[in-house]
Amino acid sequence: MPELIESITRVVGSRGLLTGADTEPYSEDWRRLYHGRTPAVVRPATTQEVAEVVRVCAAANAPIVPQGGNTSMVGGATPDESGTQIVLSLARLNRIRDIDPTDLTLTIEAGVTLKAAQTAAAEADCLFPLSISSEGSAEIGGIVATNAGGNNTLRYGNARDLVLGLEVVLPDGQVWNGLRRLRKDNTGYCLRQLFVGSEGTLGVITAAVLKLVPRPRETEVALCAVSGPEAALNLFTRFQAHDPGAMQAFEYMSGTGMGFVLRHIPGAVLPLSQPAPAYVLVELATPRPDAGLRAALEQVLEAALTQEVVTDAAIAESEAQRTAMWRLREEHSEAQKQEGASVKNDVSVPVSKVPAFIRAATAACEKLIPGIRAVPFGHIGDGNIHFNLEQPEGSDGAWFLAQDHAIMDAVNEVVRQFDGSFSAEHGVGRLKPYLMAHWRGGAELDLMRRIKQAIDPGGIMNPGKVLP
Amino acid sequence: MPELIESITRVVGSRGLLTGADTEPYSEDWRRLYHGRTPAVVRPATTQEVAEVVRVCAAANAPIVPQGGNTSMVGGATPDESGTQIVLSLARLNRIRDIDPTDLTLTIEAGVTLKAAQTAAAEADCLFPLSISSEGSAEIGGIVATNAGGNNTLRYGNARDLVLGLEVVLPDGQVWNGLRRLRKDNTGYCLRQLFVGSEGTLGVITAAVLKLVPRPRETEVALCAVSGPEAALNLFTRFQAHDPGAMQAFEYMSGTGMGFVLRHIPGAVLPLSQPAPAYVLVELATPRPDAGLRAALEQVLEAALTQEVVTDAAIAESEAQRTAMWRLREEHSEAQKQEGASVKNDVSVPVSKVPAFIRAATAACEKLIPGIRAVPFGHIGDGNIHFNLEQPEGSDGAWFLAQDHAIMDAVNEVVRQFDGSFSAEHGVGRLKPYLMAHWRGGAELDLMRRIKQAIDPGGIMNPGKVLP
Repeated sequence: MPELIESITRVVGSRGLLTGADTEPYSEDWRRLYHGRTPAVVRPATTQEVAEVVRVCAAANAPIVPQGGNTSMVGGATPDESGTQIVLSLARLNRIRDIDPTDLTLTIEAGVTLKAAQTAAAEADCLFPLSISSEGSAEIGGIVATNAGGNNTLRYGNARDLVLGLEVVLPDGQVWNGLRRLRKDNTGYCLRQLFVGSEGTLGVITAAVLKLVPRPRETEVALCAVSGPEAALNLFTRFQAHDPGAMQAFEYMSGTGMGFVLRHIPGAVLPLSQPAPAYVLVELATPRPDAGLRAALEQVLEAALTQEVVTDAAIAESEAQRTAMWRLREEHSEAQKQEGASVKNDVSVPVSKVPAFIRAATAACEKLIPGIRAVPFGHIGDGNIHFNLEQPEGSDGAWFLAQDHAIMDAVNEVVRQFDGSFSAEHGVGRLKPYLMAHWRGGAELDLMRRIKQAIDPGGIMNPGKVLP
Repeated sequence: MPELIESITRVVGSRGLLTGADTEPYSEDWRRLYHGRTPAVVRPATTQEVAEVVRVCAAANAPIVPQGGNTSMVGGATPDESGTQIVLSLARLNRIRDIDPTDLTLTIEAGVTLKAAQTAAAEADCLFPLSISSEGSAEIGGIVATNAGGNNTLRYGNARDLVLGLEVVLPDGQVWNGLRRLRKDNTGYCLRQLFVGSEGTLGVITAAVLKLVPRPRETEVALCAVSGPEAALNLFTRFQAHDPGAMQAFEYMSGTGMGFVLRHIPGAVLPLSQPAPAYVLVELATPRPDAGLRAALEQVLEAALTQEVVTDAAIAESEAQRTAMWRLREEHSEAQKQEGASVKNDVSVPVSKVPAFIRAATAACEKLIPGIRAVPFGHIGDGNIHFNLEQPEGSDGAWFLAQDHAIMDAVNEVVRQFDGSFSAEHGVGRLKPYLMAHWRGGAELDLMRRIKQAIDPGGIMNPGKVLP
């Protein structure tokens, strides 16, 4: 090991290496699910340095854990407890290499934060349309490696749909330069789509070409009260039929979750006359300055009110009001934390099945733990529900958390009945490989293993993640 | 071989097998580039039959050539001259398994034609937005296996972007059921994206879940005269900034190509006052019934006319006029054929580089063969130009065609200078594997070979295609 560290230091210099106590922030995931150890955090500054570090590690058969902003929800970017896994931080690869507003492309290194990427796009009068809560810390390499989703997937797709090209350091230290800026290119297997979502187990993403879109010039946000998920889905189909191109986000919230937000978040106010069983936050946006978005929004809402699909609605009249409405949605996790212990499930089902899923999963959890409080919220337009469960009022938090696997299993069993996924946008990481054999077993897992073996025969890339 | 045929017949029955002269239409590609031979064309009727046929062939180490509508532009779906390759026709897998207008999904078998898929979507008041000239014959399996593009890629992406799930028979006869209908699913490697565009070399696609979109309710089409590709790109960026969601197609045509159409196609009429150096066909569409698309179109065109980006423009006033305008574009290939011998290049470059590419490639070809007539046309908004070359007036067609490789090489050299692709939407097939080492060599081709070896170690799936 000292020899390995010495070889790595020769590549990156002492500035590019952290050891001892300095490695601690890199060894623990932000949810504090895992507390690992690493002999060194390597911080190369260029793709070439990454390649040389990987070559050195491959020669020593030393496992590598690529890390971006360390915001994984599933422990995907931290080393295990063995103390043998080298953490490869991409944070110093933080250059924006090129931005082209005609091509609508952004060529960018892995260590740039999502927020900085959005800012660079905005400065060129464009939008990079991926947005997630952790965007201030999450870095592009991780966004791409985990196929991040978020609020705007509905309109622009997941990270997968926004990547035109990649630069990847392979497990043997070769660099694949696939930084193409082409909208059409049918020349062999689509390698970039294999690396997107592979969570660092097939190679190290060092740069990407991302798609941009023209910046919206009109935005409208409304908060709607509905009787439950069935009415929310009904409203969604109305907006979808009307003008899907304008629908930027469509978020569902339960009355329970909104109650937590109003109780715990300072300054949170419901802009409606009274609480409702459930809510929808809808955002429309368009680059066309005279698209009549407000009129379109009012028209859909009026029809929905008349037909009692929506029981009340408020349209934001200013940027401040838009921000306040979004805050009611964004603070759901924080409010849940304040309320007590909770168990999180990031699941998806076909869009049409969301209401039946929410009903059935709620019933299953209530049967398991009487008094449990279901707090489903999230991207109903993508069929992606954060189906979180809050401890029963007055119960013991530790007692509740000790039942987390039983709760997750109960939810997942319902997800399976509806042909859904146990991980919609958070990935597999270290938290969920144990589910892979049951959910993706047989031919599918066999194919994944063969691909892993073909590309990383030494098994040095992010071991213990994704594959069981 | 007789034993193999006997085993296959036991699986599919005599109805599912063609031999002798009956195999001829399946042994030649429609461009008549290749004239192969096959001992048998197998026509299974179910996924299970496909799996059993593949198992039998794998046991006998017999090569398999999957075939859909046999409309490949690159000889990708026909057997070689050895007489040993079994043709596996998917034509009898022609059921629509499910259509869901709320989920906006269509679950469909490989042998359904693209046209029939579009019709099924329309009957559910939806649109399957992929459209190519051969849609009456091309089948879904081939559309997906070749990652087909077409006119509407600009708005809806390539086939790759429209596939949510796949069912694939693997080279060992296992069936992978990945027919998921989820918009978000991060559970391991994205296998479907590996099969999309693999041109039958990794397995046999038997069914797919396709994305639908709401049916457009307003459509506007305009034909614009421009001074050349620079002005065409300028006009494109204006429409893009204005409302990219509404732009369904943006097609470029040269004055030369339009001249051929007006000369050779019966009934073709230019709806403008006089011929121009180049033309753009733009189509806007929206599901919103009151989106004011006509006003938006007129506004962009008026500004472009005032600023002399466009020199003349006609807006279609009826469905008949829209069809007539589209015909001027769609008949380009036929008109070129009538005019004489031509060499075709399906290439792409970054969108911003299309004008410089057209100028440079035209100059390179004119230098190679004085009098040669460049006929660039196609999807300028995707950077995808069909850079076709017509023989010099009065020259000998056979003499011209004998120089096809020199012409293609000259064009490709310019494509390379602009970081483009030698195959934008037609794929590699049997025509272009010789280009792979030069264009996609090193780490990239190495990865492709490793993946091929991992998934099809016996090399029985569509040998001689894609990989050199």
